[in-house]
Amino acid sequence: MGKAHSNAWLKPPHFFDVPIKPVLKVACARNERDLREFADRWGWEEIETDWRKVVARDDIDIVDISVPPHMHYEIAVAAAKAGKHIFCEKPFALTVAEAQAMLDAAQAAGIVHYLNHNYRRAPAVRLARRLIDEGRIGRIFHWRGAYLQDWIVDPSFPLTWHLRQEIAGGGPLFDLNSHSVDLARYLVGEIRAIAAFTTTFIKERPLPGEGAATFTAGSGQTTGTGMVTVDDAAFMLAEFENGALGSFDGSRFAPGRKNYNTFEIYGSNGSILFNLERMNELQVFFRDDPAYAQGFRTILVTEAGEHDYVAAWWPPGHIIGYEHEFHHAVADFLTAIANQTSIEPNFYDGLKEIEVLTAARQSAETGQKVMLGG
Amino acid sequence: MGKAHSNAWLKPPHFFDVPIKPVLKVACARNERDLREFADRWGWEEIETDWRKVVARDDIDIVDISVPPHMHYEIAVAAAKAGKHIFCEKPFALTVAEAQAMLDAAQAAGIVHYLNHNYRRAPAVRLARRLIDEGRIGRIFHWRGAYLQDWIVDPSFPLTWHLRQEIAGGGPLFDLNSHSVDLARYLVGEIRAIAAFTTTFIKERPLPGEGAATFTAGSGQTTGTGMVTVDDAAFMLAEFENGALGSFDGSRFAPGRKNYNTFEIYGSNGSILFNLERMNELQVFFRDDPAYAQGFRTILVTEAGEHDYVAAWWPPGHIIGYEHEFHHAVADFLTAIANQTSIEPNFYDGLKEIEVLTAARQSAETGQKVMLGG
Amino acid sequence: MGKAHSNAWLKPPHFFDVPIKPVLKVACARNERDLREFADRWGWEEIETDWRKVVARDDIDIVDISVPPHMHYEIAVAAAKAGKHIFCEKPFALTVAEAQAMLDAAQAAGIVHYLNHNYRRAPAVRLARRLIDEGRIGRIFHWRGAYLQDWIVDPSFPLTWHLRQEIAGGGPLFDLNSHSVDLARYLVGEIRAIAAFTTTFIKERPLPGEGAATFTAGSGQTTGTGMVTVDDAAFMLAEFENGALGSFDGSRFAPGRKNYNTFEIYGSNGSILFNLERMNELQVFFRDDPAYAQGFRTILVTEAGEHDYVAAWWPPGHIIGYEHEFHHAVADFLTAIANQTSIEPNFYDGLKEIEVLTAARQSAETGQKVMLGG
Amino acid sequence: MGKAHSNAWLKPPHFFDVPIKPVLKVACARNERDLREFADRWGWEEIETDWRKVVARDDIDIVDISVPPHMHYEIAVAAAKAGKHIFCEKPFALTVAEAQAMLDAAQAAGIVHYLNHNYRRAPAVRLARRLIDEGRIGRIFHWRGAYLQDWIVDPSFPLTWHLRQEIAGGGPLFDLNSHSVDLARYLVGEIRAIAAFTTTFIKERPLPGEGAATFTAGSGQTTGTGMVTVDDAAFMLAEFENGALGSFDGSRFAPGRKNYNTFEIYGSNGSILFNLERMNELQVFFRDDPAYAQGFRTILVTEAGEHDYVAAWWPPGHIIGYEHEFHHAVADFLTAIANQTSIEPNFYDGLKEIEVLTAARQSAETGQKVMLGG
Repeated sequence: MGKAHSNAWLKPPHFFDVPIKPVLKVACARNERDLREFADRWGWEEIETDWRKVVARDDIDIVDISVPPHMHYEIAVAAAKAGKHIFCEKPFALTVAEAQAMLDAAQAAGIVHYLNHNYRRAPAVRLARRLIDEGRIGRIFHWRGAYLQDWIVDPSFPLTWHLRQEIAGGGPLFDLNSHSVDLARYLVGEIRAIAAFTTTFIKERPLPGEGAATFTAGSGQTTGTGMVTVDDAAFMLAEFENGALGSFDGSRFAPGRKNYNTFEIYGSNGSILFNLERMNELQVFFRDDPAYAQGFRTILVTEAGEHDYVAAWWPPGHIIGYEHEFHHAVADFLTAIANQTSIEPNFYDGLKEIEVLTAARQSAETGQKVMLGG
Repeated sequence: MGKAHSNAWLKPPHFFDVPIKPVLKVACARNERDLREFADRWGWEEIETDWRKVVARDDIDIVDISVPPHMHYEIAVAAAKAGKHIFCEKPFALTVAEAQAMLDAAQAAGIVHYLNHNYRRAPAVRLARRLIDEGRIGRIFHWRGAYLQDWIVDPSFPLTWHLRQEIAGGGPLFDLNSHSVDLARYLVGEIRAIAAFTTTFIKERPLPGEGAATFTAGSGQTTGTGMVTVDDAAFMLAEFENGALGSFDGSRFAPGRKNYNTFEIYGSNGSILFNLERMNELQVFFRDDPAYAQGFRTILVTEAGEHDYVAAWWPPGHIIGYEHEFHHAVADFLTAIANQTSIEPNFYDGLKEIEVLTAARQSAETGQKVMLGG
Repeated sequence: MGKAHSNAWLKPPHFFDVPIKPVLKVACARNERDLREFADRWGWEEIETDWRKVVARDDIDIVDISVPPHMHYEIAVAAAKAGKHIFCEKPFALTVAEAQAMLDAAQAAGIVHYLNHNYRRAPAVRLARRLIDEGRIGRIFHWRGAYLQDWIVDPSFPLTWHLRQEIAGGGPLFDLNSHSVDLARYLVGEIRAIAAFTTTFIKERPLPGEGAATFTAGSGQTTGTGMVTVDDAAFMLAEFENGALGSFDGSRFAPGRKNYNTFEIYGSNGSILFNLERMNELQVFFRDDPAYAQGFRTILVTEAGEHDYVAAWWPPGHIIGYEHEFHHAVADFLTAIANQTSIEPNFYDGLKEIEVLTAARQSAETGQKVMLGG
Repeated sequence: MGKAHSNAWLKPPHFFDVPIKPVLKVACARNERDLREFADRWGWEEIETDWRKVVARDDIDIVDISVPPHMHYEIAVAAAKAGKHIFCEKPFALTVAEAQAMLDAAQAAGIVHYLNHNYRRAPAVRLARRLIDEGRIGRIFHWRGAYLQDWIVDPSFPLTWHLRQEIAGGGPLFDLNSHSVDLARYLVGEIRAIAAFTTTFIKERPLPGEGAATFTAGSGQTTGTGMVTVDDAAFMLAEFENGALGSFDGSRFAPGRKNYNTFEIYGSNGSILFNLERMNELQVFFRDDPAYAQGFRTILVTEAGEHDYVAAWWPPGHIIGYEHEFHHAVADFLTAIANQTSIEPNFYDGLKEIEVLTAARQSAETGQKVMLGG
């Protein structure tokens, strides 16, 4: 993530007319040796192992929080109180209480706060939103989201921090479904009821060796096994406030799916399909096409002047990749700071996301459908 | 359905070495004029408007029940008692009680009973089963089934019998999910818990004109509107007895999806994808392929000698269609009769299917997860 | 082929309102024992090993020629002279002289003559033609045809009649490219110049054992090897009379391609893609779609009332297969006979096809572009 | 191109352990105002409008030639003589004589010379090469290359330098087929004979306004029309030295194809498919898979440790884009300089490419197959 974020701060000024040119001032992490090497490679001017010192500095305007979820709350609140604009990784927080406090702090401070659900800024996702806004999809009947990966199918995969509830907040329920919920809220609307089934297929795993994962909470253990305390898969059903019926299937146990973040949206006028592994494409079906020529069309979302962000990059058909979504986010974030406007998704979206995910956890535990909000 | 079934009885003897050659003896329906034309076209020797008379005849060995679900119970029990072998359409019955009684009658009579979930006999589905049986997929983690159509999205689509609970038993919950549940049971195993959300998007529809649908239960109404009493969409979560976590999304409100009966199966050794709209293909991922060359392969399931049923048809790459699954079913059914063996799926599978679907309905009504069987 | 043709004569009267109901009168082939079994299975009333006797009968109205190409000429001319309507397999003939004589005989006799390029009657291909006729594709710039298979990649595949020039007329140049040329003529127009490269990868093969292939010209040899006298692959370039630039790639040496008969058409208003292995689909791109929403759409060509022939079959999304194209051809052929009209493609198309293929052979031999027609 | 190249020089040191860190010293172009803005945005230290002065400087080690083809020869020879390492855009040169002189100069100078056929460094293309090298494809029977675009279909598209023979060297014959020929040579081998058909669909176009294109050779004309002097499409047939039979279809008149650089390779053991618009994927078919489970698999070429270059980037399934191929080229080029080794493709490959393309032009003009090399 440090690599993705550093690159994301460096590149936008070359491609976008951003009003603020970021300076890579201080890189902060616990392991000083790794941090030094990292800072050298990317051109960070200084390093620091105590994040509190960074937050306290007057010459810092932006704090980029790309640490595991359990640290978001403390850093974000401190940074907000210090008046720093915040670029925060997801999932947003461990609990609704944390999320609410983070939002409160950000609003009280009047900072620009951004939650990095970067996939909102894939040009194809923006096109999906445009089609919905223009009425081309009509009344939405269904959301079918799935975010599937396969990186922990092997039982010998170690018990990294991602598999520990107190650090990660959850398994795919938090890590993957948070993305899907954000996209669903962006494209369909708020969720009013949720049910979920979760499961943990492999309940015990080898402890990671030293250095195997940065954030192993300092146990020092390098042998033996430990209990997985998060879900391996989390499937959810949802009713949206607008009446749409939806599903979310999140799993790290889907062999062959590497970063298979997909959604299907069906509406009274048309339908939309997206797959992050083919992120330069959007599939769309329109019911108002002539009946003999209706079909899902695959739009290559690479036309400058037609598709968001694309003018900054390459000629038609010359695709962009995962990192470009970060560049779009950074460009928009810098613009929001310069213009003193807000940006979406932000800490409010983070709160809503955590409300949905914690409701889902409650449903998985109780076997009951959970109603949201009011 | 009469067309599909008539064709299904005629063709297998040409392509398969069936031990019994069916004679199209009596076609039975209510509307005598339409029935006459139908029988002439297909070569049925006689027609009859009272099914009881047909069941009572000594020269009838097989009864093919392809009427709406609410009539299955009565006809099937009567036919079984009369010792006729039964080829029955799906969904099996309206209630668990009906389903149990039908199974009991069939078992008591010692007849060959078949429930026409024809998709089990797509060569691609058979290949999926073979791969699972051989251990190529390993421990199954997930079933992701979807059966999506779009034929009633238009609010002017009339209130045919499919939209009336007392005749159809349910909307997609019964009509579509029954197929998916059957495939899931065939490929993954029994379901032990279920949760469901259902919805009806268009609650009132124009009444169909006379003749607009054969089975409008004789209301005689030709104007005005009536209430839809079934679901328009039914999404379900499931836990399988083997620990797999699954989802089933059934809807008639998915524009662009015509007969989109799909499933994804993920296991510890590999994964399988199927889409009925491309029924001659199966996609498979194997984790034991060399790491640099792993990927979902698209198998064209048209190789005689390698893929079930295919030797009867055409050279490789010359695809078959929807009707061929019926032919496979009829060929197997006739063979079972000749060999005095059973065939799957049968009335037991029908009972299990109805147990799952009624549990799902209960969950949708109560907001609670429902445990099955014991 | 006997299976495909018998089935093709039997089924259409059930599904189409054909004005003539064919009677399966005489099945004719050389091997009496096989013929008897075949006739019994399919319900042919009589058998005959001498085709001349069949052609001479007064009670025969239609002759279906589904023998290897080297016999087409003699049978077709005799049948035409006897006033029989002719349903003839492809490739049409061995030489332009034969083709011209066949056409002359058919025209002189005033019979209905049909050349069975069945793929013209795939609903998707008909839709392609409709789009072109309506101007939705505009001025055609390109045809890219490929017909690829892989059934003789193994050097141990025997020297069947398909690999002998004097029987088959050619390898893929005749067998596969004849189909592509027919589709190109149907959709794009006449060809005015051609260049071709051909090659034979495996020049010697084992002779087939007795019975290994029906038409091995009676050599009686069962051991040893023989020389392949046809091409294994034939790639062609073409200029069409309307200025379009095209390519045709035909090969039996394309592993993974089973019946990969594909074409791409590019025009000033749009583009079309077809793949026979997914014959129920047509992909279409329209330049007049809004720029931000252009893309190749995949049309599922299964809508009754919208797509040709489909109303006879199943509901939307319930696909048809290879054999249905034969049924469409037979239905149209019978209608043409009843209506005393002509049908396409016919012997004129056969002549044009052979002109193109023999020009291609000449180009492959001389290394020079060959101009056609005048 | 300036954007792509500047970015390509900046980014590799962050992601790869390159032994040389490039300094963006001098940006050179004719239009000083545009050049200034460009240099500022990208951080070029100086600007210069006379390339000769840059080549003469002692503090320049690398010359990156990304100007239209007609200037390659002069700059490359001068740069080589000055001992600069050269990173040269494609197509390589206008004539075989130019190409030979450029190669001679580079070899005489002992510089590292690189021809930027960047697609060789797509991880998927590298995987294709690996599979071929390992024998997984076997004896290659076929190459089917196509490079299709649609950016000049509109007759109002102006007569930019790309459409002028004296500047561009050719239309798709040079611009697109050069890429395909390079990939074919990389993957299949040398070409021994070629035939080509070319055409120009739109022979006259509006002259571009001032500033509409950088390199309009100073005509000053801003109104009226001019003649297109290059091909709009160029289709070729090829025989390879190893006996493979190939085709190359290049066109700018294929609506819906944006950067559709595709190839299919068929061999005795397997087959490979690639499409640049989905450049993170490679499709592969293996004949030694079990017969019931053979099919084209889609490999997502994003596995660090398994696929070339990927370890530098993101987790599995997080795709890269067009620009990354440039980064790979720059990283390898810098490494070659540091290690005093050569890199491919280089000026020798440029010579071979131009030999093939000029032979194709000769064939298109004469209607005769042209033999290559000796």
